[in-house]
Amino acid sequence: MKDQANAPQTELLVCVKCRRGQEIPSDARRPGQYLYDEITALETPEGVSVTPVECLQNCDHGCTVALRGGDARWTYVFANVDEVSHPKMILDGAAQYQETADGVIPWRQRPEHFKRNCVARIPPVTLPETLPEETNND
Amino acid sequence: MKDQANAPQTELLVCVKCRRGQEIPSDARRPGQYLYDEITALETPEGVSVTPVECLQNCDHGCTVALRGGDARWTYVFANVDEVSHPKMILDGAAQYQETADGVIPWRQRPEHFKRNCVARIPPVTLPETLPEETNND
Repeated sequence: MKDQANAPQTELLVCVKCRRGQEIPSDARRPGQYLYDEITALETPEGVSVTPVECLQNCDHGCTVALRGGDARWTYVFANVDEVSHPKMILDGAAQYQETADGVIPWRQRPEHFKRNCVARIPPVTLPETLPEETNND
Repeated sequence: MKDQANAPQTELLVCVKCRRGQEIPSDARRPGQYLYDEITALETPEGVSVTPVECLQNCDHGCTVALRGGDARWTYVFANVDEVSHPKMILDGAAQYQETADGVIPWRQRPEHFKRNCVARIPPVTLPETLPEETNND
């Protein structure tokens, strides 16, 4: 699985407009922006970049991040991200994603939060004929 | 917005493994497969193709479809799709999506189901500096 040298860059998308369902004063920093600030204050794993996004439209279950990385990888969207306790976990997960060829982090190695809070995944543009098995119930 | 002639093909992804939370006998047709069968039995709009996918991991709110169409468009994931009443609406929405340059169907023209059941959207790979305004609350 480790073809990191040849793999496209992993992009971690962070919804910076997320209010996480709260009333936020217009001049206050939103939870999504806080999350982005905390993530970018940490060291970014090799091969990973962080992109602020205006709305990933998972507004009822924010904060929200997504991982993508080229036409051969699945894109994953993760909900219920906490801006205080989760930034390091998200970056560690992004590093694991970057180590995969297809974007599918092996289930047992996947962060628990990723297992429980995946709201959707989008197949690679270059969809292989045999799809990797996903277990969402164990 | 209508640059259909030059626009990349729109891909309608349909999760064919969806059980919609039901216990389904192993030899029975799943709701997701039923949805795919119904959609492909109808006339596909020009510029749209339909792709069966094994799991979009929106299992708690299936059936699920996604729309994507090249690097310049947003990808959208829609939940709670009904295999009996929604196939035509989904194809009409796919045709509207195909008419856009950026994948953002104007809010007032968007199918009601799309407005209420978008679980996530993924920005274009070629993210414009100015993002289109989305209204999720009106």
